[in-house]
Amino acid sequence: MVGPEIERLIQLLSRLPGLGPRSARRAALHLVDKREVLLQPLAHVLADVADKIKTCAICGNYDSVDPCSICADTRRDGAILCVVEDVGALWAMERTGAFRGRYHVLGGLLSALDGIGPDELGIPKLVQRVVESGVTEIILATPATVEGQTTAHLVADRLAGLGVAVSGLAHGVPVGGSLDYLDDGTISAALRARRAF
Amino acid sequence: MVGPEIERLIQLLSRLPGLGPRSARRAALHLVDKREVLLQPLAHVLADVADKIKTCAICGNYDSVDPCSICADTRRDGAILCVVEDVGALWAMERTGAFRGRYHVLGGLLSALDGIGPDELGIPKLVQRVVESGVTEIILATPATVEGQTTAHLVADRLAGLGVAVSGLAHGVPVGGSLDYLDDGTISAALRARRAF
Repeated sequence: MVGPEIERLIQLLSRLPGLGPRSARRAALHLVDKREVLLQPLAHVLADVADKIKTCAICGNYDSVDPCSICADTRRDGAILCVVEDVGALWAMERTGAFRGRYHVLGGLLSALDGIGPDELGIPKLVQRVVESGVTEIILATPATVEGQTTAHLVADRLAGLGVAVSGLAHGVPVGGSLDYLDDGTISAALRARRAF
Repeated sequence: MVGPEIERLIQLLSRLPGLGPRSARRAALHLVDKREVLLQPLAHVLADVADKIKTCAICGNYDSVDPCSICADTRRDGAILCVVEDVGALWAMERTGAFRGRYHVLGGLLSALDGIGPDELGIPKLVQRVVESGVTEIILATPATVEGQTTAHLVADRLAGLGVAVSGLAHGVPVGGSLDYLDDGTISAALRARRAF
């Protein structure tokens, strides 16, 4: 009874992370309720993004320019690369404002199950970039999960012998985190990595 | 660093029910990840919905035709109207397949706080429809909340003396519901409305 257009809208919305079939229906209804102020602007911005956003051929970031604004920014240190799983991790790193180098987006993590190996992750491309662009330091910022750390080890292996310094993000108690709510693995890691006060 | 197009996409997505700022960011990233298979189709269907979907001038339903397919369906009983809060409630009622009359969408509930009175809810329009279209029965299907029931009482008041039968949905234990997980109000209502076995 919903009609084919709204049915299709619900179906596409339900494929967004965080929206199940029921919340997709609510979202579709909300969009139709707010046709002028929400649905039409969203249709325009989606068309705009589809039209303009490209994947940076150098680092894999998303931007309206290629090379992306980070790769093109001469004030950023091209000798330091931060290796991240995906663009979401790149955004998270950028929000901190704490990193002034450039990035390399893997586009995933090693996964035998999903058939994702070193080539799918563009690791040969990273090695080539390190060799050709005078990169001197690599920071591995893959997630602190089994897949993330396996991927980090593989990247580190492939970079061995290229004369590049390789480090990984520290593991420990999150800032503002209470021990009560932390898992054992994090507390153990923080204990092992304890620092002089 | 995200760029103005993606920033705007995140901002609009975060206005959907069920998506906060963080999940809107994830959804935007997912859309850009799946440009061909998700972002572009969604842009098209939104433009399509914006273009085609109208509010039915008779009942307030959303459809690509006006009067909507329910109001236009001669197999449905135009003498019975189900009064609902919004199109979401109409959809929910339609999914049951249990109602073969037509609808009247109020577009909200009475709310002194939000300045929503009888006129904003189109109650005069409902009264006019009842008088002019030979409606003989009204089913009040507003939610079982204070606002929903206040609204139902107001509608019933306005319809008094028009010679139309007015009923409300039964309150009771939801089918499949266990007493353990039900609130006291529902159990009391079910007890008061107990039926001979």
